Amino acid sequence: MRALEEIAKFIGGEMRGDGSVSVARVVHPAVAQGASDLAFVLSSEEASVLSSGRILNAVVPAGIENLPIPNQIVVSRPRLVLAKLTEFFERPVHVAAGIHPWAAIDPTASVGEGTSIGPFCWVGPNSRVGARCRLVANVNLGAEVTIGEDSLLHAGVCIGDRCEIGSRVTIQPNATIGGDGFAFVTPEPGSVESVRKTGEVRNFNTHIVRINSLGNVVIEDDVEIGAGTCVDRGTLGETRIGHGSKLDNLIQVGHNTRIGSNCLIVAQVGLGGSSTVGDRVVLGGQSGVPDHVSLGADAVIYARSGIVGPVPEKAAMIGIPALPLRQFMEQEVKMRRLPNLIKDLQRQMASLEEKLNSLFPPK
Amino acid sequence: MRALEEIAKFIGGEMRGDGSVSVARVVHPAVAQGASDLAFVLSSEEASVLSSGRILNAVVPAGIENLPIPNQIVVSRPRLVLAKLTEFFERPVHVAAGIHPWAAIDPTASVGEGTSIGPFCWVGPNSRVGARCRLVANVNLGAEVTIGEDSLLHAGVCIGDRCEIGSRVTIQPNATIGGDGFAFVTPEPGSVESVRKTGEVRNFNTHIVRINSLGNVVIEDDVEIGAGTCVDRGTLGETRIGHGSKLDNLIQVGHNTRIGSNCLIVAQVGLGGSSTVGDRVVLGGQSGVPDHVSLGADAVIYARSGIVGPVPEKAAMIGIPALPLRQFMEQEVKMRRLPNLIKDLQRQMASLEEKLNSLFPPK
Amino acid sequence: MRALEEIAKFIGGEMRGDGSVSVARVVHPAVAQGASDLAFVLSSEEASVLSSGRILNAVVPAGIENLPIPNQIVVSRPRLVLAKLTEFFERPVHVAAGIHPWAAIDPTASVGEGTSIGPFCWVGPNSRVGARCRLVANVNLGAEVTIGEDSLLHAGVCIGDRCEIGSRVTIQPNATIGGDGFAFVTPEPGSVESVRKTGEVRNFNTHIVRINSLGNVVIEDDVEIGAGTCVDRGTLGETRIGHGSKLDNLIQVGHNTRIGSNCLIVAQVGLGGSSTVGDRVVLGGQSGVPDHVSLGADAVIYARSGIVGPVPEKAAMIGIPALPLRQFMEQEVKMRRLPNLIKDLQRQMASLEEKLNSLFPPK
Repeated sequence: MRALEEIAKFIGGEMRGDGSVSVARVVHPAVAQGASDLAFVLSSEEASVLSSGRILNAVVPAGIENLPIPNQIVVSRPRLVLAKLTEFFERPVHVAAGIHPWAAIDPTASVGEGTSIGPFCWVGPNSRVGARCRLVANVNLGAEVTIGEDSLLHAGVCIGDRCEIGSRVTIQPNATIGGDGFAFVTPEPGSVESVRKTGEVRNFNTHIVRINSLGNVVIEDDVEIGAGTCVDRGTLGETRIGHGSKLDNLIQVGHNTRIGSNCLIVAQVGLGGSSTVGDRVVLGGQSGVPDHVSLGADAVIYARSGIVGPVPEKAAMIGIPALPLRQFMEQEVKMRRLPNLIKDLQRQMASLEEKLNSLFPPK
Repeated sequence: MRALEEIAKFIGGEMRGDGSVSVARVVHPAVAQGASDLAFVLSSEEASVLSSGRILNAVVPAGIENLPIPNQIVVSRPRLVLAKLTEFFERPVHVAAGIHPWAAIDPTASVGEGTSIGPFCWVGPNSRVGARCRLVANVNLGAEVTIGEDSLLHAGVCIGDRCEIGSRVTIQPNATIGGDGFAFVTPEPGSVESVRKTGEVRNFNTHIVRINSLGNVVIEDDVEIGAGTCVDRGTLGETRIGHGSKLDNLIQVGHNTRIGSNCLIVAQVGLGGSSTVGDRVVLGGQSGVPDHVSLGADAVIYARSGIVGPVPEKAAMIGIPALPLRQFMEQEVKMRRLPNLIKDLQRQMASLEEKLNSLFPPK
Repeated sequence: MRALEEIAKFIGGEMRGDGSVSVARVVHPAVAQGASDLAFVLSSEEASVLSSGRILNAVVPAGIENLPIPNQIVVSRPRLVLAKLTEFFERPVHVAAGIHPWAAIDPTASVGEGTSIGPFCWVGPNSRVGARCRLVANVNLGAEVTIGEDSLLHAGVCIGDRCEIGSRVTIQPNATIGGDGFAFVTPEPGSVESVRKTGEVRNFNTHIVRINSLGNVVIEDDVEIGAGTCVDRGTLGETRIGHGSKLDNLIQVGHNTRIGSNCLIVAQVGLGGSSTVGDRVVLGGQSGVPDHVSLGADAVIYARSGIVGPVPEKAAMIGIPALPLRQFMEQEVKMRRLPNLIKDLQRQMASLEEKLNSLFPPK
């Protein structure tokens, strides 16, 4: 139970009403009930729910505080306040302290102080897990893996040999770090090469040779990796995810790819092998970047866009193939106007023909 | 071994030939061999295979029963009959009865009667698994998880803390329920906000703050979740999947999303955070729904469509950006006709110019 | 440590400089340092890095060997050489010899000679694992599964009951083989059927019946399956992946699907149920194939393409909906020229009108 005035102070809001009231949890306005619930109002759209009289305590954005709620904490930039509130009321994942008796820690591995390792986790030879980490359950660390401090690996996470994970990294369940890259070559030029050269399939992939992945994956500090996301290891060198970058679920990161710092990559994005993503890039859900293509820093890629070539810094890109936002919009407008322009022409043509025919009637 | 007449009765078909013959399995016509195989014919396309004389027993759709097969069960709506046949001949996943000695059941957890738990499963503190459930192997249930009765969790499934799974739910291998939502905020308005306002990247995501997920996932009765699918937990409240809905493999369900009942969602669909999917909605494979967008009941979304705004009830939507099917078709037709309309105009123009030039020759 | 001349011989390159020098590893030019590193140069684009003088040994493609590097192995078709080099310097995944004491091998299962099984692996009843296989950790084999010889199953892999895996197969972490197919039917014709017939949603999926999956998955020899990829089992028969085919990460392979031999399928592709993929087909990343559609042998499908109907042999397809490459290009050109064609017509029209108006002034 925390007092409203304590919460108001922590989130930088203005207390109105009785600040000595204590609440147990922060909830969506729709489910708030009773004196120990603190409703969080994100926008005026939800305001209607709030006039029910059922809500006694609420965090509300400035401008819509005129509501029948006795105790209010008035804030600006509510999403940022939400972040603070969820920090205040955080409910960290359950992991029992210490090492579970059914965790398989290789005798040559080292585990830092205060680190918890759940049941059926495997830590391979010569791997080193730093202090205060949490491996929830069924987590697999191969050989020579390093994990920094305060990192959290959820159930089912697999980290391959020699990968390096930083500190304060969070990896959601069933993510795979360090699978082999998808790298194959045909001894003779294959079908794709012939299509690129001639527009036709003239060669055939009768034999396929594997390129092994000798490299690893490096995940820097403060990165978050989503559930089911796969980050392949480099061929000779590393695949790297820069500090502070956040990857959502079910993302594919190809081999040798380099992602800068503080990127936001939404679910189901595909990053081809050896692609490069600059710092602070945002990639919308289900978008794709081909092999060897680079995105400049601060680029914003809309959801479902299909990038086909290098993207400059600070570009906003959209569409398949992706174009700069302005160009895409102009082209859309241009194309949509065509049918009417043609109708205008048809009308003009008809009236011209009529005029000419009335002046010079056809025989 | 089941007698054909017994099968005919169960699937509501008409027996022709010797109903006392017994069969051991139901197979595709292409692999049927011998007296104990029952071939299942789905359509007349496969009819040619059937005249080989190799097939002795078959289920055939009405209208094509005139085949050289001695024993036939004639049916209508064959896909429904297929469902019944596969119920009759079901081969449920192998799970040994009872709790495997290498399953880690927290002493505070409870396990219902008749429930089987395979090797390397973990059931966290205060979790409750109902009667007659099956946890195949390597299944992870965090703390305070509840599972109803008769549910089936395949190998590698991860269920996060406090999630609630109903009865008769099936979750395919390596699915993740209750990963944290992908929710971040920049203290100052970031690059995406500036693009939305101005069409340009003018702000930069130099700092990213996490919004923790305090909520959970609720999966109602009779739901099926596909392999590798990820359902994120709510921020303050729940992410909910309504009763009877079926989700295919590798689907992303964002935080706070609400899916109604009896939906069919095909593989690799992405549902953004706080999106809403009405009852009985069908989403084709690889389609996507943005954050905060709602789909009305009974909407049908074609494969690979990119939804960009709210969809009304019973709408059929297609394309990127998705349009109502009729409008999409009309627009396609309109656009494809443009080159010919222009050619017509060019011809008319030339003949007009010719006429004018012959009447008034240019100097 | 291997001598350069030995490496040159193995990869079929021409030794220039001191072939008696020994190197310990092959690295990207950017990280090469010291006498024991062998830099691998893939293309002239990287040539600038090479003039630093920091690199002492390098494999370089013919044509750019004029570099200040003392010891060079000059090669042609460098990607093929890279394959050989990574074979020479391979760093196979760590798996301890023998069966880990915490692996659960059913007493009725058999394990071949020289096979290694890591911690928390489960091998179900009557399953047979061939000789010299490696199950890294947390691998799940259900009942009656067969694995050939020399196959490698990474951590978190799940293989369902009755599936058959060939020899020299590699399955990356967290892949799922043999989940149930996504097969459901409505007792009465449902919403999708009504849209197909009438363009409108007129029927409603009020009841959904499951079609169980009685079949299995067969993966032939020398196949590679990527991390997180899901291959569903057949309904009555099998889902089959032909020998030598390579599948990347996060791919969906629906039930009853048949993939030929030596295919290359890039990440996040979706193959609908009962689709057929011919031999040596290449599918670019994030492309999709609907249910029941077949792709002819040697077809090349560009990334993000949405196939909508059968594809002939050797076709190169691109776009949504996918068209033959040539046709797509022609159509693109045609459409992009329209605005200018219309401008031309507008000009001609204006000058015609002007001429006519000057000859016959409107009243």
